[in-house]
Amino acid sequence: MEKMRETIASIKALDENAMAEARRRQDDLTKPQGSLGHLESLSIQVAGMKGNPRPRMIHKVIFTLAGDHGITKEGVSAYPSEVTPQMVYNFLRGGAAINVLARQVGARVVVADLGVATVLDPHPDLKNRKVAAGTRNMARGPAMSREEAIRSIESGIELVEEEWLKGIDILGTGDMGIGNTTPSSAITAVFTGADVSTVTGRGTGLDDEGWRHKVKVIERALEINRPDPKDPLDVLSKVGGFEIGGIAGVILAGARYRIPVVLDGFISGAAALVATSLSPEVKPYLIASHQSVEQGHKTILEYLGLKPLLNLGLRLGEGTGAALGIFLVEASIRILDEMATFSEAGVSEKT
Amino acid sequence: MEKMRETIASIKALDENAMAEARRRQDDLTKPQGSLGHLESLSIQVAGMKGNPRPRMIHKVIFTLAGDHGITKEGVSAYPSEVTPQMVYNFLRGGAAINVLARQVGARVVVADLGVATVLDPHPDLKNRKVAAGTRNMARGPAMSREEAIRSIESGIELVEEEWLKGIDILGTGDMGIGNTTPSSAITAVFTGADVSTVTGRGTGLDDEGWRHKVKVIERALEINRPDPKDPLDVLSKVGGFEIGGIAGVILAGARYRIPVVLDGFISGAAALVATSLSPEVKPYLIASHQSVEQGHKTILEYLGLKPLLNLGLRLGEGTGAALGIFLVEASIRILDEMATFSEAGVSEKT
Repeated sequence: MEKMRETIASIKALDENAMAEARRRQDDLTKPQGSLGHLESLSIQVAGMKGNPRPRMIHKVIFTLAGDHGITKEGVSAYPSEVTPQMVYNFLRGGAAINVLARQVGARVVVADLGVATVLDPHPDLKNRKVAAGTRNMARGPAMSREEAIRSIESGIELVEEEWLKGIDILGTGDMGIGNTTPSSAITAVFTGADVSTVTGRGTGLDDEGWRHKVKVIERALEINRPDPKDPLDVLSKVGGFEIGGIAGVILAGARYRIPVVLDGFISGAAALVATSLSPEVKPYLIASHQSVEQGHKTILEYLGLKPLLNLGLRLGEGTGAALGIFLVEASIRILDEMATFSEAGVSEKT
Repeated sequence: MEKMRETIASIKALDENAMAEARRRQDDLTKPQGSLGHLESLSIQVAGMKGNPRPRMIHKVIFTLAGDHGITKEGVSAYPSEVTPQMVYNFLRGGAAINVLARQVGARVVVADLGVATVLDPHPDLKNRKVAAGTRNMARGPAMSREEAIRSIESGIELVEEEWLKGIDILGTGDMGIGNTTPSSAITAVFTGADVSTVTGRGTGLDDEGWRHKVKVIERALEINRPDPKDPLDVLSKVGGFEIGGIAGVILAGARYRIPVVLDGFISGAAALVATSLSPEVKPYLIASHQSVEQGHKTILEYLGLKPLLNLGLRLGEGTGAALGIFLVEASIRILDEMATFSEAGVSEKT
């Protein structure tokens, strides 16, 4: 609890001076003012996060956190839970979508076991942060204890602390966990007050009947557990997941170290609800990479006031959308840093 | 005229076999089917263009074509025409936005003078394809002759032919020309039948009065010239521009060489209207990188049935949106090529 408290207490507001200086530079670059739209505002926001009017993006890290979910016993996912560890091994071999996209953008992928149900073979690139062997079935009681919820968040914080020593200029969040759209929908319903059916999607591929069943299971989980929306640890422990808590910790630590936090899709969005509920000061450090097909994600983005950079119909997770988002943030920062100014280039300004 | 005719006659349909094979592979990669949304369909489309179920993206080229516009005499732009050559020099020195983004995505930029009003200093990286020293004032008569229109298109084709010898796996279109949103709005109104005011924007930054004046100037140009929407060379010559004709040529040649054509914004969109009107077979080779703030661009994208990959509020041109689009197309192709299949990775499939 101490680590989480300290992290939250250390989060500072964006640096207004750095932002003003970045804005002046953007307006002096050889293009009509505002003509690069959202890329311009992004670069100014990042300057404020980093307290540097001309930041660089050298070290890029995507955190892909894995966990299993007891709720899969209720038949809420099209894939079996054994896929969670199989995909972790796929990440470690470099064969998954997140590996491909991370290579393309020059990011390293940190793969961590926050709560996979099986014991994973040790691997030099696998961070073992297992809180427990999967959550309990939240349709019958709390998914985890309050202590476990804190441990998952603090594990996420520790992952960032470790990488901070190697250098991180930007981070992306990612998840792997069969069944994890179910707790994400539950979390979204609790924090935003939305009706369960409006924030529940088809996950990896449920049919109509499967979807109706999933909605009922989530409604039951909320009825049995009655999570308190004013107490984010209560929500996370009753209807959350270990990787979701871990991502919330990554987000908190990102803000604490003034690192731009590029959110992936729905699961990362649910984690962002937990993190911003723990500390609203986190919000200015968040960048939404894309809007997921999972319908609850739109609700989260609107609730957090985030405008997604991409809308490509993604719903994979792993941090894939975040990797694409990191590319766009880097583009905005390179524009700010590398473009010539009107006076440098001898270009006439607006008449 | 011969080169244009031959190019158009050589354009073939997408390769259905390559697309079917690419689709099978996408469905066998370690992710839920369809979970990468538009990236999956993009990769399949590109496989069809290239006639290869696992294409690679090594050589990326952005064509940034420059031209001046006699219509600027009517006061339709916030910037003076002298900015066109100044920006060409900026491109050649590597200080413009397109240079920054091309470096980031690993693309080379081909800068060509299709019709800048002043004589440009020779430079080893500048292609001199000047058709004339700027178009004539289309508010008083045709912008160029029919022969000049053909010459501009064939110059664009030749630029691609030259680069084809060095290798092109994907190309992006780009423009530089103070005043060129004005002919682009005129072209859009003619081909789509839309009202001028609905397809005219603020260019590099007109105020309300400037915008109303621009609409009137375009309406006058259309009234005086009466371009025939069924004759694309008539439209281009009467209310077009040299860089717009050049981009139309780049598009035609791209399709002819089975190269994915990533369109930039409004000016490239107007060129795409000319190209697809000359040959509807071009359409499947077009990828819309983004939706510009210029309001006529949305009309073009809807008319051509293109879904933009990005909506970042861009309105710069130069090929900047195309560079970002090239990154996303490359991402789709890397996913298709580099990801492990279910059997390779030992991952269980959907139950």
